[in-house]
Amino acid sequence: MKNSSFEIRTDLAVEEKESYPGDGGEIQGVSLREWEDEACGIRYTEVKILDRQGAEAMGKPEGIYLTLEADQLSQKDDDYHDEIARELAGQIRSLIGRMVDKENASILVVGLGNHMVTPDALGPRVVEQLQVTRHLEQQYGEGFCQARHLPVLSGIVPGVMAQTGMETAEILKGVIRQTRPDVVVAIDALAARSIRRLGTTIQLTDTGIHPGSGVGNHRNSLTKESLGVPVIAIGVPTVVGTAAIVYDTVDTMIQTLNRHVSTKGMGSMMESMTSEEQYALICELLEPEFGSLYVTPPDIDELVGQLSFTISEGIHGALFP
Amino acid sequence: MKNSSFEIRTDLAVEEKESYPGDGGEIQGVSLREWEDEACGIRYTEVKILDRQGAEAMGKPEGIYLTLEADQLSQKDDDYHDEIARELAGQIRSLIGRMVDKENASILVVGLGNHMVTPDALGPRVVEQLQVTRHLEQQYGEGFCQARHLPVLSGIVPGVMAQTGMETAEILKGVIRQTRPDVVVAIDALAARSIRRLGTTIQLTDTGIHPGSGVGNHRNSLTKESLGVPVIAIGVPTVVGTAAIVYDTVDTMIQTLNRHVSTKGMGSMMESMTSEEQYALICELLEPEFGSLYVTPPDIDELVGQLSFTISEGIHGALFP
Amino acid sequence: MKNSSFEIRTDLAVEEKESYPGDGGEIQGVSLREWEDEACGIRYTEVKILDRQGAEAMGKPEGIYLTLEADQLSQKDDDYHDEIARELAGQIRSLIGRMVDKENASILVVGLGNHMVTPDALGPRVVEQLQVTRHLEQQYGEGFCQARHLPVLSGIVPGVMAQTGMETAEILKGVIRQTRPDVVVAIDALAARSIRRLGTTIQLTDTGIHPGSGVGNHRNSLTKESLGVPVIAIGVPTVVGTAAIVYDTVDTMIQTLNRHVSTKGMGSMMESMTSEEQYALICELLEPEFGSLYVTPPDIDELVGQLSFTISEGIHGALFP
Amino acid sequence: MKNSSFEIRTDLAVEEKESYPGDGGEIQGVSLREWEDEACGIRYTEVKILDRQGAEAMGKPEGIYLTLEADQLSQKDDDYHDEIARELAGQIRSLIGRMVDKENASILVVGLGNHMVTPDALGPRVVEQLQVTRHLEQQYGEGFCQARHLPVLSGIVPGVMAQTGMETAEILKGVIRQTRPDVVVAIDALAARSIRRLGTTIQLTDTGIHPGSGVGNHRNSLTKESLGVPVIAIGVPTVVGTAAIVYDTVDTMIQTLNRHVSTKGMGSMMESMTSEEQYALICELLEPEFGSLYVTPPDIDELVGQLSFTISEGIHGALFP
Repeated sequence: MKNSSFEIRTDLAVEEKESYPGDGGEIQGVSLREWEDEACGIRYTEVKILDRQGAEAMGKPEGIYLTLEADQLSQKDDDYHDEIARELAGQIRSLIGRMVDKENASILVVGLGNHMVTPDALGPRVVEQLQVTRHLEQQYGEGFCQARHLPVLSGIVPGVMAQTGMETAEILKGVIRQTRPDVVVAIDALAARSIRRLGTTIQLTDTGIHPGSGVGNHRNSLTKESLGVPVIAIGVPTVVGTAAIVYDTVDTMIQTLNRHVSTKGMGSMMESMTSEEQYALICELLEPEFGSLYVTPPDIDELVGQLSFTISEGIHGALFP
Repeated sequence: MKNSSFEIRTDLAVEEKESYPGDGGEIQGVSLREWEDEACGIRYTEVKILDRQGAEAMGKPEGIYLTLEADQLSQKDDDYHDEIARELAGQIRSLIGRMVDKENASILVVGLGNHMVTPDALGPRVVEQLQVTRHLEQQYGEGFCQARHLPVLSGIVPGVMAQTGMETAEILKGVIRQTRPDVVVAIDALAARSIRRLGTTIQLTDTGIHPGSGVGNHRNSLTKESLGVPVIAIGVPTVVGTAAIVYDTVDTMIQTLNRHVSTKGMGSMMESMTSEEQYALICELLEPEFGSLYVTPPDIDELVGQLSFTISEGIHGALFP
Repeated sequence: MKNSSFEIRTDLAVEEKESYPGDGGEIQGVSLREWEDEACGIRYTEVKILDRQGAEAMGKPEGIYLTLEADQLSQKDDDYHDEIARELAGQIRSLIGRMVDKENASILVVGLGNHMVTPDALGPRVVEQLQVTRHLEQQYGEGFCQARHLPVLSGIVPGVMAQTGMETAEILKGVIRQTRPDVVVAIDALAARSIRRLGTTIQLTDTGIHPGSGVGNHRNSLTKESLGVPVIAIGVPTVVGTAAIVYDTVDTMIQTLNRHVSTKGMGSMMESMTSEEQYALICELLEPEFGSLYVTPPDIDELVGQLSFTISEGIHGALFP
Repeated sequence: MKNSSFEIRTDLAVEEKESYPGDGGEIQGVSLREWEDEACGIRYTEVKILDRQGAEAMGKPEGIYLTLEADQLSQKDDDYHDEIARELAGQIRSLIGRMVDKENASILVVGLGNHMVTPDALGPRVVEQLQVTRHLEQQYGEGFCQARHLPVLSGIVPGVMAQTGMETAEILKGVIRQTRPDVVVAIDALAARSIRRLGTTIQLTDTGIHPGSGVGNHRNSLTKESLGVPVIAIGVPTVVGTAAIVYDTVDTMIQTLNRHVSTKGMGSMMESMTSEEQYALICELLEPEFGSLYVTPPDIDELVGQLSFTISEGIHGALFP
């Protein structure tokens, strides 16, 4: 059983799922589907949290969490990013289709995060590259976009609470009440558990944004309940907590020790520790070396640049004809 | 009389005033007051547009336009900028005092403009440096700020329509309805007529922002009428239209020619041209050399950096004890 | 005759040429050739300064000055920039061919200017985007590049004297002595006389860089004489002096007045002024309004971004197979 | 004994020293001195590598390695940074005094690293903020600086090999031969073993820069031998290798396990592993999770901004009266 008093934080449902022993199909209330597009090398994982029991086990609300993984995503290859953007476009289109019943739905893209802190700037940079159209309706008359098969697209960078003095939800509630989009697409930088995921994974979900997620750590709830319109969230992990690094290492170590002939006894001994003992051990390991530090790769500037391009192109591909 | 069909654009009331012949005191419905703080070398000009007649003559709405001018403002001298910030603080405090009757008014600072185009980034950079406090009320309970003699300060960078697909007024209406500030302070980069004013002049006004003002040229109305709360505008000119440069040159030239013995006849001849003739002449001068180009000084990055610091410090000085 | 005591500065030979009355073919020691590539809309002007007399008249050293002009150069259109880059590549290749007799010449690209002042950052940004190869020779052995038909390409951003405390020529002399390139290609931001040229003109010359040219105004001599290797200079105007704007306006005005029936007398009167009188007049016009200010377009960030890409692609196209 | 076939990289001598068991005083050829300035909370550690034996044990050349540590260094507090800068100034002054026998030595500050990759941009940003003076000697005559008690200070950002195609040593050799400084001060971003050191430690050494050090990982030798003048290196760790994180964790774990009653056997069992077994274990732990990734804190932009200011002020304090 998972020790709920010691949480290694991850915003990725797929990592939460992996943290369970066995092949994981057995969690009550959670279903898993994996497939791969061999042509473009993207691995898909769809985690569905089906009920309250699943939600509790996973520490995430009910809904669909789709993950696209591709190692090259963190590398600079424009053609490859175009391909990913096309795949992403297909998934965004289908997700919007499931959530909004209306053709030509009007969409508000929200770039969460702090544009001055690079690993948290993914959302703001996506909005910077967005081809918005909603103002054309105001300039040339209602129906202008529909007649030209254009989406009614708007975008906003609400900033972070420490810079605005306002909760993001307050700002968005006001803007939504005034501009009446049919659906919100929120872009956010995420925290992962594994360094390997940084910049190689895109998560799409129909559950919106939940308290405590995201790089800045203090997002509040952005959901259909809080905003009044369905909220799709698109996120890419750009930081890993050092606690996660330690936890993963311990975990890998236990498994490794079990495979090592000479240390066989040690691994099983540790495995036999209760979760309380493991917790105590890890806390001791954590202090004072790490605290609550997050880390990010040194080429984060380039990474965020590329990924924000890929996501904005994915949104364009999903909406523009 | 001023030729209304040929407008040389300036966002500064003081320049509009200067464009009138004579010492200008004579315009119906406009009053002028000038003074200087010799200690710190700041020149003050207060233009009051008193009635509809004044508003029509000036092409600006009724209200108070206070200008602080200081040549060193564009130079890098931290001590000097501190002094200007103190002066500015006093003026902002008094302006807020006149507009809001309440102690501990809550204030929303709006950074207008496009943070990616340097001469238009003044507003966004002021908000980046703002010490907001409103969220403390939400975290520690209402009355937290008042008990500590802190202002209730929030800030937002709404972006420009071409990036958001929404009118700035729409975004602000929504945010204001949701967060209920008592007064809005809008920061904006302005267009001046004279290159000499770039980065050396700060204009404060109680009239809000009016359509067509600002660097991006497509601001819409942000006033008590449109937003429901009083709007103070603080602006600094960062661009000059090339048309203005030409117009000013012609103007100076006429005066110069009149003073030159050898060319006396020419100046008076030109002065005797009707405004239509002058307009035709200038149009010919303008085409095809200039079009509607705006120009900005090469050290604009540094200029906007310094001025945004001075203004944010001015706001802090006005509100924090 | 041109008034040598009052210089309106331009770094473009083509503008210097235009400032002469008549169609200019008549200047002793200067030849002019103009043509147009209609397919891609580029206008070419080649000014050859043939001897000392021409050099004195033009205020520029003997050599070839080739100008590519295209209005769309300042606009954002990637395909169009590719086309310009191809044209530029051809011209650079032919210029290098004329200056260096050796196949597989090794080339040092020098990015002049201050990377922190946007209008002066053209050179540094070109070098940032350069695909250098010279280090491959050091890593994999001499002849590596030649065997793969790669150029031996290196690049440096020497900085400006106020930041380094060294003359650019000193730095380059040292680097050249150590790394032995066959030719230097110096990239520089230029000052133009006409606002219309900003970002729409590329000048190539085989004369190197001369004292007083460039945006920062204090470049020193970078020529075959000073550096020991031939120096090609590629420049794009990014600033205009306000003095140039005034001078041009006066000039246009005189011509305009002559065409205007009602003001006929005035123009000819001014034309009859001696150059000393004109000089005195302009000085009066200049003071105190303008001083030695330079101006630059507000979208200079984007302009420098695009042009640096076009030039680096031009260099790549000229050298890589 | 240390396992030389498995190197956890650190550029800090103080960390190399700490990696030895015991209190470390016992390493042949290495001396250690520690003290603290309680007023300003700076801890000093001086590691002297005295001979070849010490150099081999430490994997670093003979010389003095002085470390200033202060936890608040990574926090934003201008007054505190001023204090650190003063302390640093004293140490730099004394180091220069020991290395150069001449009064008014001329100094070339070299900003190593890539200004476009934030954790590697420390050196370039220090040079950006430097008050150089050497050009005054050229403008106003030799002796100008000495007469005014100014240092003869110059600075250069040579770039990285992948951007220049030249080895940094080549560029510097050329520049030094041409401009004849008495001493080089090289500023570099370093790799540490412990996350806790990121941005909290400044290392000064009289040994110059050695191959394989620095963030970009491919610096080459910059020493008195390679450049002909003494080289002082000032560095701050801005990245940690993930391998280091794992190694540290394993190490801490072994110690922790030994203190835990319930797992006593396990720790001692592991301690009894040979270093080869430990190496095999760690390699397995490392693959495929980490590879050769480096990590950096999310607020690296701000960190590099502050530290580059502190170091440039330290240099100014050491040289200017």
